[in-house]
Amino acid sequence: MNITVIGCGRWGSFIAWYLDRTGHTVTLYGRKSSSHIQQFIETRSNGLLTLPESIQLTSDLDAVDKADVIVISIAAQSLDSLMTQLQTMKLQNKIFVLCMKGIEIGTGRRLSQIASAHLDVSNKVAVWIGPGHVQEFYNGIPNCMVIDSEDEQVKKQLLEAFSSDLIRFYYGQDMIGNEIGAAAKNVIGIAAGMLDSFGLTTLKGALMSRGTREIARLIAAMGGNELSAYGLCHLGDYEATVFSKFSHNRQFGESFIKGEDYGQLAEGYYTVKALVELSERYQVELPISKAVYGILYEHADPRMTLHQLFTRSLKNEF
Amino acid sequence: MNITVIGCGRWGSFIAWYLDRTGHTVTLYGRKSSSHIQQFIETRSNGLLTLPESIQLTSDLDAVDKADVIVISIAAQSLDSLMTQLQTMKLQNKIFVLCMKGIEIGTGRRLSQIASAHLDVSNKVAVWIGPGHVQEFYNGIPNCMVIDSEDEQVKKQLLEAFSSDLIRFYYGQDMIGNEIGAAAKNVIGIAAGMLDSFGLTTLKGALMSRGTREIARLIAAMGGNELSAYGLCHLGDYEATVFSKFSHNRQFGESFIKGEDYGQLAEGYYTVKALVELSERYQVELPISKAVYGILYEHADPRMTLHQLFTRSLKNEF
Repeated sequence: MNITVIGCGRWGSFIAWYLDRTGHTVTLYGRKSSSHIQQFIETRSNGLLTLPESIQLTSDLDAVDKADVIVISIAAQSLDSLMTQLQTMKLQNKIFVLCMKGIEIGTGRRLSQIASAHLDVSNKVAVWIGPGHVQEFYNGIPNCMVIDSEDEQVKKQLLEAFSSDLIRFYYGQDMIGNEIGAAAKNVIGIAAGMLDSFGLTTLKGALMSRGTREIARLIAAMGGNELSAYGLCHLGDYEATVFSKFSHNRQFGESFIKGEDYGQLAEGYYTVKALVELSERYQVELPISKAVYGILYEHADPRMTLHQLFTRSLKNEF
Repeated sequence: MNITVIGCGRWGSFIAWYLDRTGHTVTLYGRKSSSHIQQFIETRSNGLLTLPESIQLTSDLDAVDKADVIVISIAAQSLDSLMTQLQTMKLQNKIFVLCMKGIEIGTGRRLSQIASAHLDVSNKVAVWIGPGHVQEFYNGIPNCMVIDSEDEQVKKQLLEAFSSDLIRFYYGQDMIGNEIGAAAKNVIGIAAGMLDSFGLTTLKGALMSRGTREIARLIAAMGGNELSAYGLCHLGDYEATVFSKFSHNRQFGESFIKGEDYGQLAEGYYTVKALVELSERYQVELPISKAVYGILYEHADPRMTLHQLFTRSLKNEF
């Protein structure tokens, strides 16, 4: 397949590397202002992985014209802006694959909803989610991921084209659950980092049990399958997010509490705001998300907030 | 309350320490042949924790006579034998609390079923399960656990008597799910150690997602609530079992593959046998348990077995 990958951060550049390795013709796009694409053009490396010469590098968005499949991996809150730009190109019969995680603040839209809103109906939209570390994949360590779409045919096509010895794909069957679950895991990752910062790592067991539960409730309220919270999109990504030293969201949570420099805001920082909005709209209690929101946005005392979270009044577990 | 704790291993001795600290009158029992109780009698310590003088140490099983509550924390496959011994004492109006994890090989009985079978109906049986490391508790790090029983009044009584700033208890509402889930987490812990031994730690995300799923299916088939697999009894204990260096089951799995000495067999070694039997009886597929069983009991090739487990044919996630 002829594939253009939009976004050349850690994941976008990995996807380009992976799809090239899997036998596709790949172009990697980054904005002219992106230091990442400049670095790739100059050295073909970002310090983490090296892109072979077979991958074309470009800052010209017209590269999507020749693609059968367009994979997008950018910051979630910027998706609407990118799609507005792509809309002017009047693309047809393309498959858009969103390999990113988030929920739009203010509207609560899932990423596939944002993308579809800007596309001609001849185009199809899919999501590619689940666990995995770029570093581990690059070292040949395999993992399992999920492809989901409202279109069964597209799902099948992508799954066959993208599978390899490195990534075993499963068919997703719940766009609501998979997209919300994937986005929300970053918030649980931030909470995990906060626990780590207080030496409360041992509470991550309870965090996992209760984190999945609140996201399952939200997914159900939104019309999805609550079990999706326990699938690869959310729980299946906890190893990479809740426990790994590579996790940006976990590291962000830890650094935030310690008052250390954390480079850039983590994706979960934005997602938690959207989750709190969804919590109100769907009238679903999300105690962990609310606690993280309070600490990040409302100067709530972190130690007391986390303490209250895990020592609420005696009650039934479910 | 006047409490006798039977079993002076890592958990039994911790429980004695904890309940004494929480204000109860505690006796810790160990068999005459137990080196643990001898060590406690001589030094009041097992190298991990030190028991205060207020805890009575004994090798006389008659100590249960004066107790209101009898907490049992021994190897699961020895419970029937202990209960046979206790049956001769014709105890009445006692509360038995099982703080242990396992399923009886050959019969598939849950631990509460074994205990009840040997007791006069005036006695009540409860279970105390969930995450926590002795080492962490001893250092003042809190955690959340569950107490469950068929008897609502007993549950309430224990929860009020046992709660403290160190352990926040929740009411369990599913004896089948909680007992099966608690036992099965040790098997997932062994699988986690096996992954670690091959440098496949990153697959623990998929292991968590699919491990919980197969145990949820078994719990449902046995008449319990499938969500219990995602509660504190099972998923909530994964931090302590799947990720922690303290986990005996995880360490056992890792050492088994590496051919290293692992001291003693882990509880999950027995549980997996019982799980495979239950899988057949209830006609529920348990791929992870079956893989662990094959490696431990049938000399299946570990690398190939684990590889097949995570690269099964392309399919739907749920």
